[in-house]
Amino acid sequence: MKVSDLNIEKMVDEIQKENGIISEVYFVACGGSLVDMYSGMYFVNAEAASMSALWITSKEFVLTPPKRLGRHSLVLLCSHGGNTPETVEAADMALEKGAFVISYTHNPESKCASEKYHAIVYDWEPETVQENKPMCITYGILNEIIHRQEPEYKLYKGMKDGILKCDRIVRKAISAYQNKAWNFAEHYYKEPFLYIMSSGSAYAQCYGFAICSLQEMQWKDCCYVNSAEYFHGPFEVTDEEHLYILMMSVGKTREIDLRAKKFLDRYAKKYEIIDADECGLNEIDAGCVDYFNAALFYEMSVLYRTAIQNKTGHPLDMRRYMGVVEY
Amino acid sequence: MKVSDLNIEKMVDEIQKENGIISEVYFVACGGSLVDMYSGMYFVNAEAASMSALWITSKEFVLTPPKRLGRHSLVLLCSHGGNTPETVEAADMALEKGAFVISYTHNPESKCASEKYHAIVYDWEPETVQENKPMCITYGILNEIIHRQEPEYKLYKGMKDGILKCDRIVRKAISAYQNKAWNFAEHYYKEPFLYIMSSGSAYAQCYGFAICSLQEMQWKDCCYVNSAEYFHGPFEVTDEEHLYILMMSVGKTREIDLRAKKFLDRYAKKYEIIDADECGLNEIDAGCVDYFNAALFYEMSVLYRTAIQNKTGHPLDMRRYMGVVEY
Repeated sequence: MKVSDLNIEKMVDEIQKENGIISEVYFVACGGSLVDMYSGMYFVNAEAASMSALWITSKEFVLTPPKRLGRHSLVLLCSHGGNTPETVEAADMALEKGAFVISYTHNPESKCASEKYHAIVYDWEPETVQENKPMCITYGILNEIIHRQEPEYKLYKGMKDGILKCDRIVRKAISAYQNKAWNFAEHYYKEPFLYIMSSGSAYAQCYGFAICSLQEMQWKDCCYVNSAEYFHGPFEVTDEEHLYILMMSVGKTREIDLRAKKFLDRYAKKYEIIDADECGLNEIDAGCVDYFNAALFYEMSVLYRTAIQNKTGHPLDMRRYMGVVEY
Repeated sequence: MKVSDLNIEKMVDEIQKENGIISEVYFVACGGSLVDMYSGMYFVNAEAASMSALWITSKEFVLTPPKRLGRHSLVLLCSHGGNTPETVEAADMALEKGAFVISYTHNPESKCASEKYHAIVYDWEPETVQENKPMCITYGILNEIIHRQEPEYKLYKGMKDGILKCDRIVRKAISAYQNKAWNFAEHYYKEPFLYIMSSGSAYAQCYGFAICSLQEMQWKDCCYVNSAEYFHGPFEVTDEEHLYILMMSVGKTREIDLRAKKFLDRYAKKYEIIDADECGLNEIDAGCVDYFNAALFYEMSVLYRTAIQNKTGHPLDMRRYMGVVEY
């Protein structure tokens, strides 16, 4: 169904009617679509007493399916183009095992839009609000399930409020950071390599920034690092020549990122700070603000990669292998 | 206790007596010690019907503890030096929540060796066999728990057998690969950057190879990629100039790595294949061989980093920050 036809409460009615209590949630996709799923996994593990969650790339899910996958599992999959073979295979396998399968896709004509799944076809236009994108739809569904399964759950209203509020905050932040992103690109577009860091529920955003926005779309070498892991190996390469982007979350894990910033302040010279606090994300309820860093940082990666493209002249949509050759 | 005093069956008796049925296992550490824990997490999720597992860096575990963490949780932590502040904090928090806490350390005088946890002090000498290192001890404990909790569990004997067998296979493979590792170092020690890939339960080994063996111990830039994710972004940088190391597992996820190899065969020129099949790992029972790739690849990362050190003259133990400055 289209997002405009989606009623989250009715969707959860259906989950409960068809599958009863949900005890595991599996977040399954590949590449950029997998990135989008990470914060949902983090949310379930940190906030749900009745469910555990696993984040796994589609092919691993297919070849080594979780032993617990079955009737009481919710499987959330995403394929933007809708025909990623591994993800379609994962969806069919999950159906066969009796799980409740929700597939997100942008392509209404694709396999992932099939009626055999509970397919959600989303818009992905500049004007599409966060509330109607897979990350926040997922929060909406999970929030509703936890609320119904756990009487003592406290974040129900806070999450609903955050889902509505975050789009305005993110758009304002993107405007505010435009000049900063241009300056970053102006100075550093020729750098052959950089490290990108984030942590907590936003960790996958440094992964996505690296593998999608730079490796895929700019053919630029880079590496992603969890800021919490930075001090346990990766920081030994840091010096005044190395380039870093650090995305600092607001919320419970902020101190992890602040520690990395303090180190960069002391030992590095070339680094860019993208600070969710400065972006006004802290307007969202402190109990659940953590989960909205990911939405902000995704849009920041789009802002920065576009600024870099404009300097490099390497079109974001140019591919040499994906969709071009057989593999 | 020392590993020589450890009796896994008695340890699991204690777990059952103190905490009853275990429903979640948390694998918690930082950097290289966290790497060692990944395949245990993968094992539980793929093979256990009664338990789910989460792999998480210590500081995230402390700041955003899993909601389910409690009496029915087993928490496995590791700190080689034994005083990693985040990991000690994680251990104390887990104790407070009522979990059964097992802490691994190499340092008998350290905080992680405290009697308030179920501490296991391991040797880490060239002659120490895999059976007595944290990865295989963990398999032993988990194997025993699943065997007792799940009458239909089929891998009990296969895992025990693999734990005993793998040391001989790994040692033989290391000898067989010595010349190959020297040649790799001879050709590529000056390369400023490389990608390292692996997948499945051995995924964290490409992570560890990158962040510990190269970033930390050689101050060399590199990036780790899950071979299953390679085709969803990272492969766009591949060309005849880029350098890759691909660690190919045996077992259920082998086809993921084979697909990456096929692509490198076609589009890259500089790449090193470390093949667990060629190393004879397939002597281990097919039902559980997957989980022993990680032990092999860890030792391979030691072999290769040592060969690289011998060419670069950059001592593996030289640090500019870790243990040198405050951070």
